[in-house]
Amino acid sequence: MNNIKNFHMSPDEFRKQGKQMIDWIADYYENIEKYPVLSQVQPGDVKAQLPANPPTQSESMEQIMHDVNSIIMPGITHWQSPSFFAYFPSNSSGPSILGDLLSSGLGVQGMLWATSPACTELETLVLDWLAEMLQLPEKFRSTSVGGAVIQDTASSAALTAVLAARERKTNYQTNDTGNLGNLVAYVSGHTHSSVEKAIKIAGIGKNNLRLIGVDQNLAMRSDLLENAIQEDLQVGLIPFFVCASVGTTSTNAMDPITEIGQISKKYQLWMHIDAAMSGTAAICPEFRYLLNGVELADSFSFNPHKWMFTNFDCNCFFVADRSVLIKTLSILPEYLKNQATESGAVFDYRDWHIQLGRRFRSLKLWFVIRHYGVEGLQHHIRTHIKLAQQFAEWIRFSKDFELVAPAPLNLVCFAHKTGNEFNKKLLETINSRGKMYFTHTIINGRYILRMCIGQTHTQEKHVRLAWETIQETANELISNK
Amino acid sequence: MNNIKNFHMSPDEFRKQGKQMIDWIADYYENIEKYPVLSQVQPGDVKAQLPANPPTQSESMEQIMHDVNSIIMPGITHWQSPSFFAYFPSNSSGPSILGDLLSSGLGVQGMLWATSPACTELETLVLDWLAEMLQLPEKFRSTSVGGAVIQDTASSAALTAVLAARERKTNYQTNDTGNLGNLVAYVSGHTHSSVEKAIKIAGIGKNNLRLIGVDQNLAMRSDLLENAIQEDLQVGLIPFFVCASVGTTSTNAMDPITEIGQISKKYQLWMHIDAAMSGTAAICPEFRYLLNGVELADSFSFNPHKWMFTNFDCNCFFVADRSVLIKTLSILPEYLKNQATESGAVFDYRDWHIQLGRRFRSLKLWFVIRHYGVEGLQHHIRTHIKLAQQFAEWIRFSKDFELVAPAPLNLVCFAHKTGNEFNKKLLETINSRGKMYFTHTIINGRYILRMCIGQTHTQEKHVRLAWETIQETANELISNK
Repeated sequence: MNNIKNFHMSPDEFRKQGKQMIDWIADYYENIEKYPVLSQVQPGDVKAQLPANPPTQSESMEQIMHDVNSIIMPGITHWQSPSFFAYFPSNSSGPSILGDLLSSGLGVQGMLWATSPACTELETLVLDWLAEMLQLPEKFRSTSVGGAVIQDTASSAALTAVLAARERKTNYQTNDTGNLGNLVAYVSGHTHSSVEKAIKIAGIGKNNLRLIGVDQNLAMRSDLLENAIQEDLQVGLIPFFVCASVGTTSTNAMDPITEIGQISKKYQLWMHIDAAMSGTAAICPEFRYLLNGVELADSFSFNPHKWMFTNFDCNCFFVADRSVLIKTLSILPEYLKNQATESGAVFDYRDWHIQLGRRFRSLKLWFVIRHYGVEGLQHHIRTHIKLAQQFAEWIRFSKDFELVAPAPLNLVCFAHKTGNEFNKKLLETINSRGKMYFTHTIINGRYILRMCIGQTHTQEKHVRLAWETIQETANELISNK
Repeated sequence: MNNIKNFHMSPDEFRKQGKQMIDWIADYYENIEKYPVLSQVQPGDVKAQLPANPPTQSESMEQIMHDVNSIIMPGITHWQSPSFFAYFPSNSSGPSILGDLLSSGLGVQGMLWATSPACTELETLVLDWLAEMLQLPEKFRSTSVGGAVIQDTASSAALTAVLAARERKTNYQTNDTGNLGNLVAYVSGHTHSSVEKAIKIAGIGKNNLRLIGVDQNLAMRSDLLENAIQEDLQVGLIPFFVCASVGTTSTNAMDPITEIGQISKKYQLWMHIDAAMSGTAAICPEFRYLLNGVELADSFSFNPHKWMFTNFDCNCFFVADRSVLIKTLSILPEYLKNQATESGAVFDYRDWHIQLGRRFRSLKLWFVIRHYGVEGLQHHIRTHIKLAQQFAEWIRFSKDFELVAPAPLNLVCFAHKTGNEFNKKLLETINSRGKMYFTHTIINGRYILRMCIGQTHTQEKHVRLAWETIQETANELISNK
């Protein structure tokens, strides 16, 4: 057989192109402030410049990178820019990129312990490290009855929690019989939309999701939660799940975990804690209070891919009793059977989430924790929080702007006193000029600007420039009226 | 504020470490045949060598890479070894690793068009390219009423298909009310276990999943499918979903798509086609017949991360009517609203799958298709199939071994004539010696060895060595009896 013809990239070519790509990325970070943070292309612009049909013949990396530079880059919104203040951050770092590169290079599957033991064992270890860094109770560690797994996103983690809660409450019968339509779940109106999505996916039905009212700080009111549970019980429904947020997406509101946790124990609900961004702050002892009450939770998740310098995707999902999770999601076809699984001595992480196949994601997290050390991570988290608090202070002392929600950490919600239309125009004007990027939310009918500080390289000068730009642009819009 | 202290990796350090990592990966591929393909560590070995507590202070990349080499590598099962013949492949390539590296470096989010337009538009374009390469009907292209999205795995794609099918059948009411318990789905006993998992997750219930019998080639019998549907209809149940496999996992059996598709149209079921590994073969015109009948499908998925040189994760999920998918999975909280979404001129891929956050995965696929060209991809797929067919031919002419299932492509199922215990011992002996790695399945009580050829660098010499080793090891086991 003729094996001579070969289209693969040779090792020498890979070395050459790989080193150029490393330089490309280093150059990108050195020049990132020259790009408009928010891409200014219009719908269809990028696609229109690329050939509609696939190439029959091989093209060179030079041709491909030419198109990256000239066509792809204008269509990029620069999440790694130090002036990216939109949404939640999705930050990254050198060691994380290198850990992810090693994962791509090894190309192993971690669906079973047996398919690459180091992939499972390093993940277990690093998640135990995180449990220690966050001072999570013993039950969330692999050495106890619980444990943790890396998932792609907090959305998948929330779905996993809903499913485990559903099965525990129905004695693992819903998996067999289908949902019976009497389970009820609880969130606040500010809980992340992924929980509503999970409730729909799991066949519970959105009508069986109660939106509990919030207090003046937009945190869930536990008295209203208990009332709702009692009402549902009285009509024969079965409360099974509550999600408490450590930092809601809109305004970083903190639900009262301890109170919600006590209610969840009293009525035997599964409490899931979604600490997607803000959980990272709890690695600093002075912010660990945010997780007070986590000992009452059945599951807890946060995303190092948001605010812990670990590039997407890396959600850490902790569960207090892993047997519930495994019983909920386990499958074992013949072609996956093996001695290690049968011995019971290993974790097979495919039974801990939706997917079967899984990438070696703990490498990047391991690289990040070792490169920074716990002290280094704490230092940078504290710096972000200090910068946000400084920004909040500027707002507080401003004549024209006001804070519209508490700013406990790194997210500041504010508005110009002039009103919704003005704030909307202010946001759009600043974003269209490309020097920085904010997003908005609406609270009680009020249009609000969000300033979220969590990008790896954000420094005081960026925050100061942002505040100056906000003020100047507001003044300009007022004069032009 | 003191911003001087800084634990980040400097651009110069990143350049240096990044280039060393590129060399590390190139060296790995040049030396990969020196490692035992199947890791020989015991449960706990890797974890026991690593510190149980996280480092307080920063460690150097040299220390980290030292541990990679001495502790992690012995715990790796080498999926990228040319003598990896186990499970299905999860192959990779130079251009794919570089595309993935670029994605890590850019670190953008593609949840909305607006969060990085190029991320959405390149994905749409490359999936249209694939639709052309696979000669998929017009309806699966973005320019028509359907379209495609990159998901992580075929498991997630199957779940997405089940959910869209559920909502279409119940007029989008299950999302609101919860599942009513009368929906029924159909697979064969050889359909991938992910569909059963999806049926459980979606609240349909495993008891409402019918396992349809198979013919002598282990393909679903469409007459039995129709019988089962009729029986369910007669008792008032609602058939809604059928999964047809192009290449089952155990033996690569091919379900009769056209017949199943006609039945799905007649009874208004959603037909999903799972072509996870074998779909790639259809980019060669001579194997396109495998997809005959795909025009009857509502959704179709295959994994370039299995057999198309694109590293994990990269599943391509095509849907004939994107409006069903979007209506099923759409969420739109205030903080994600933007002009582009409201204009309706763009795709927001977060509404096409479970997750919200998403990585720029189309880069690696674009790099692969451009680097190889369609001709290059076809060449290597054909080579793998020729090698597998040669191996099957050796088995066919062997006195001691026999084929136990048809081998239409790159998977050969075979067994020594001596019986189950012998075959099991044969497999374990070969795997324990580390020169190559096979896995097994059980069909009709018979223990069967699987030889799956799809690793990027597998050549004739590797397949020939495998066959020699299998024969020699069998003879050795017989003499030692």
